[in-house]
Amino acid sequence: MAAGDVVLGTNQYGKAEVRLVRVTRDTPVHEIEDLTVTTQLRGDFTACHTAGDNAHVVATDTQKNTVYAFARQHGVGSPERFLLRLARHFVDGFEQVTGGRFVADVHAWDRIAVDGQAHDHAFVRTGRETRRTVVHVDRDDVHVLSGFTGATVLKSTGSEFWGFPRDTYTTLPETKDRVLATSVTAWWRWADPDVDFDARYPVVRDLLLATFAQVHSLALQHTIYEMGRAVLESCADVAEVRLSCPNKHHVLVDLEPFGLDNPNEVFHAADRPYGLIEAALHREGDTPVPHVWASVPGFV
Amino acid sequence: MAAGDVVLGTNQYGKAEVRLVRVTRDTPVHEIEDLTVTTQLRGDFTACHTAGDNAHVVATDTQKNTVYAFARQHGVGSPERFLLRLARHFVDGFEQVTGGRFVADVHAWDRIAVDGQAHDHAFVRTGRETRRTVVHVDRDDVHVLSGFTGATVLKSTGSEFWGFPRDTYTTLPETKDRVLATSVTAWWRWADPDVDFDARYPVVRDLLLATFAQVHSLALQHTIYEMGRAVLESCADVAEVRLSCPNKHHVLVDLEPFGLDNPNEVFHAADRPYGLIEAALHREGDTPVPHVWASVPGFV
Amino acid sequence: MAAGDVVLGTNQYGKAEVRLVRVTRDTPVHEIEDLTVTTQLRGDFTACHTAGDNAHVVATDTQKNTVYAFARQHGVGSPERFLLRLARHFVDGFEQVTGGRFVADVHAWDRIAVDGQAHDHAFVRTGRETRRTVVHVDRDDVHVLSGFTGATVLKSTGSEFWGFPRDTYTTLPETKDRVLATSVTAWWRWADPDVDFDARYPVVRDLLLATFAQVHSLALQHTIYEMGRAVLESCADVAEVRLSCPNKHHVLVDLEPFGLDNPNEVFHAADRPYGLIEAALHREGDTPVPHVWASVPGFV
Amino acid sequence: MAAGDVVLGTNQYGKAEVRLVRVTRDTPVHEIEDLTVTTQLRGDFTACHTAGDNAHVVATDTQKNTVYAFARQHGVGSPERFLLRLARHFVDGFEQVTGGRFVADVHAWDRIAVDGQAHDHAFVRTGRETRRTVVHVDRDDVHVLSGFTGATVLKSTGSEFWGFPRDTYTTLPETKDRVLATSVTAWWRWADPDVDFDARYPVVRDLLLATFAQVHSLALQHTIYEMGRAVLESCADVAEVRLSCPNKHHVLVDLEPFGLDNPNEVFHAADRPYGLIEAALHREGDTPVPHVWASVPGFV
Repeated sequence: MAAGDVVLGTNQYGKAEVRLVRVTRDTPVHEIEDLTVTTQLRGDFTACHTAGDNAHVVATDTQKNTVYAFARQHGVGSPERFLLRLARHFVDGFEQVTGGRFVADVHAWDRIAVDGQAHDHAFVRTGRETRRTVVHVDRDDVHVLSGFTGATVLKSTGSEFWGFPRDTYTTLPETKDRVLATSVTAWWRWADPDVDFDARYPVVRDLLLATFAQVHSLALQHTIYEMGRAVLESCADVAEVRLSCPNKHHVLVDLEPFGLDNPNEVFHAADRPYGLIEAALHREGDTPVPHVWASVPGFV
Repeated sequence: MAAGDVVLGTNQYGKAEVRLVRVTRDTPVHEIEDLTVTTQLRGDFTACHTAGDNAHVVATDTQKNTVYAFARQHGVGSPERFLLRLARHFVDGFEQVTGGRFVADVHAWDRIAVDGQAHDHAFVRTGRETRRTVVHVDRDDVHVLSGFTGATVLKSTGSEFWGFPRDTYTTLPETKDRVLATSVTAWWRWADPDVDFDARYPVVRDLLLATFAQVHSLALQHTIYEMGRAVLESCADVAEVRLSCPNKHHVLVDLEPFGLDNPNEVFHAADRPYGLIEAALHREGDTPVPHVWASVPGFV
Repeated sequence: MAAGDVVLGTNQYGKAEVRLVRVTRDTPVHEIEDLTVTTQLRGDFTACHTAGDNAHVVATDTQKNTVYAFARQHGVGSPERFLLRLARHFVDGFEQVTGGRFVADVHAWDRIAVDGQAHDHAFVRTGRETRRTVVHVDRDDVHVLSGFTGATVLKSTGSEFWGFPRDTYTTLPETKDRVLATSVTAWWRWADPDVDFDARYPVVRDLLLATFAQVHSLALQHTIYEMGRAVLESCADVAEVRLSCPNKHHVLVDLEPFGLDNPNEVFHAADRPYGLIEAALHREGDTPVPHVWASVPGFV
Repeated sequence: MAAGDVVLGTNQYGKAEVRLVRVTRDTPVHEIEDLTVTTQLRGDFTACHTAGDNAHVVATDTQKNTVYAFARQHGVGSPERFLLRLARHFVDGFEQVTGGRFVADVHAWDRIAVDGQAHDHAFVRTGRETRRTVVHVDRDDVHVLSGFTGATVLKSTGSEFWGFPRDTYTTLPETKDRVLATSVTAWWRWADPDVDFDARYPVVRDLLLATFAQVHSLALQHTIYEMGRAVLESCADVAEVRLSCPNKHHVLVDLEPFGLDNPNEVFHAADRPYGLIEAALHREGDTPVPHVWASVPGFV
């Protein structure tokens, strides 16, 4: 087979996991911003692949430098805005760069309390969920995803699972009361990138968690759907929601051999295997953008 | 906004990371197969999402049981064949299941050597790369990906990087001799699922690694392209290759302050950030199947 | 050399990382306790080692069952009390068991807020520090350690480092203002195991973090000492404090090549290497118990 | 309570996880050495802790520089020798440094095979076990530990477990044939630091693994004891062996509900909890050195 038959398809490259910490110290009350930033450029890089010609290759080291320099020149602000600015810089500044994929994780900090007062310049990392964002740019086509990973939630009641088909390989008993636990990975696509991201993020996150809490669950699929539906119904600026939720099984321990009952009190929290439930919800009439969702972190 | 506006989009569910170990003990010389298997079903599960009606939901526990039972009934064999059999079982056996995504990681074992002889029933885990496979089924449309992750390779010379554009944010010096190191995640799509996967896997893997070794690299993109090209040119049964390769930077340590030179001898192996280079190669005329590649593990 | 020369020394065995979740559901307002428990027994197990005679070996499976059964019979309460009860059960119940080491990690949960109200039975995992405890028993000799790991803290100013010796290999500049960040692993040994552990734990933890915040640091050693001193001076029930603190270096990024200054604003948060500072503090006259501290998790 | 009551106890500090890669390129056939090195100094550092006086504090950055400079000046060689040289440098070169603890992990590489030939300068990381060493120095008192972690081994037969006591909480059935699997963490203390470490390491490692394979196991304790005994009996230069072995449970899957038997063929490889068996073996008359073993990595 001749070499000419081989074609370079989809490709991207960049610097991954730039650990950026920015301190704002205009006043004695400091602010801290802590992000892990990945830049991935797309465009005309064929000569580099086929001939090792780097004339078009904005070095990944340069991309890293740009992240740090932009944090000084423009500040950070919302991770979405920070990525949008980076994206425009590369797409507008280099003819060969036609787009890219830009990802940021936000590591949140609280102030340490001293005698009940929030300290001016001492912080403690909060560990609840990790806020994330993906900015996807293809020339003037821009999509922004916001979301989070690692929000581990549990309902100690209010969850059932029954009515599923029973075939040769089915042994699971039906239940009207189980522990339901998951670690939510959630992403949503904004209808328009002109959003006050920092204001809207906690609204969407809190709505997702509150809905998890409130739904009387008949299946994790059912819960997930309601979570996404709640967002789409109350957030006009959100076009699509995607959720990936492991079913973190809590197995009721059989204490009968020890002469003990176990009325849904003592559980073994299992590691593997786990159920894995994934769904996308959008509005009727929404134009699907599957390419934007390709390889979004957190989906298996 | 009315609830009716919300539409369920793409969704899938199943059991993730079933840890299956199968011992073949027909003779005193045992064989061991060790897989982590994920099954994800697709089909008509709308009622479960919107109404908590599980009549269509093959329980993830049932999926797990099926994995174990099939290992007993049919053996394992190549992970690709094992997944294809599982896929057909679910798609053919349940009207509501129209397809799915099935993933397996293979954990390899060697025999322990005792006095230079391979032991009959004692094994040690090998840790080089992890072989993986994804089987993607949509009714009669079947695609098989094979690949691996975690093959960490390094060239101590034979790698250059120069000729890249220099803008305001560029500080990286050019180099005609650097250490090139990466941890290869490779996937390839078979033109047809009728392959002797176990025979072909080591051929493709060895070719990828040997090409990494042999290419005088002008950029990691250049190396990756040559790796993929080598496979497409010599393996007629492979339709497409995708590679995701972090550039694991080895930074030459500046020893001048200590009155020492450092002629490419002493390096700091950096963790983060790292370059990340990803590319797909296919043959001219190949029909692209982006949906098969969505969320393939190992790509960012 | 004759086989008789070989002597069995220190040994222990048990079940590690039992994942216990207990729901208290006496009222509609549920409580949740989530622990990872390890039991390690010590005693007369020589025959098992030398001859495979298990007559003395309380199976690790039995140990696991006991953890779950005790959670039902006695509840959990503070992790220290739970481990003390388990320890007594094994030491008093089996002649051959003379002591052991018992470890628990506590995974904390908050209630999910719904319309500003804490939900009755829906929880979200908090991620700040992980509370831990080690109970060390040797017949009637009992020691209790409490502590935590993973409290990541940062001061954006108020930290200096200068005056250190400069030898041939020293290049580090002195600084009067740097970012100081660490992930605190702290352990303290109670003078007496008769403590209200749940009441005292947050007092000690908050004091450690507040002291980190308040000390104007001249070295991480200096900060650590002050943290430990604050506890010993205000907590009469604490006999000894041990701290293990990685110096999570935040490297000021050189922006001069881009014509930018960087007045302690933009930092690269480095992964490796990191400083590692470890110290123990106790009161004068305290009897040291190094065997209790052997292999306490979190120290290198 | 007065501040004077507080006493600084055990303390140490240094640079952790220096990632050192050294290429020997004297001939076209390159060699590669890849280590993660931790240095921890002990001595008179009280003034730093109590007063922030750094006059005695060899900066951890200086320690890192020394690691890299020594790799250039003296080469690496065996990790034990490399650490011994570093230790002497710090203890002999700084009056206030009386000792320390020095740790190295070795990351092994093979040559990539090209057409059946080992390549001159292209390598692939091997992933079996990680060789480790700890050098413990207190003035002229020197101890060297060698060992490894992460050797995952499995016997598919030749393992029994029965005869253990049955109490209220015992449900485990006895077995005459089970899968025995563990991930061996092994350490041994050399009787004298004047050893050809690189020659002896594979001898001890292979003996440990071969003994695991050959022992007909009546308990994991029994296997571990025989592993240690084999080393002490055949290696006169080894004074003590310590093993930490999780019992990685392989649970026979119950296939009866599906009308299938399971004659020790299909197993679920469980994650947690796991048994954890730890033992030390030494020779009669050996002087114990518990302080050397404190906080050796890999023991819980």
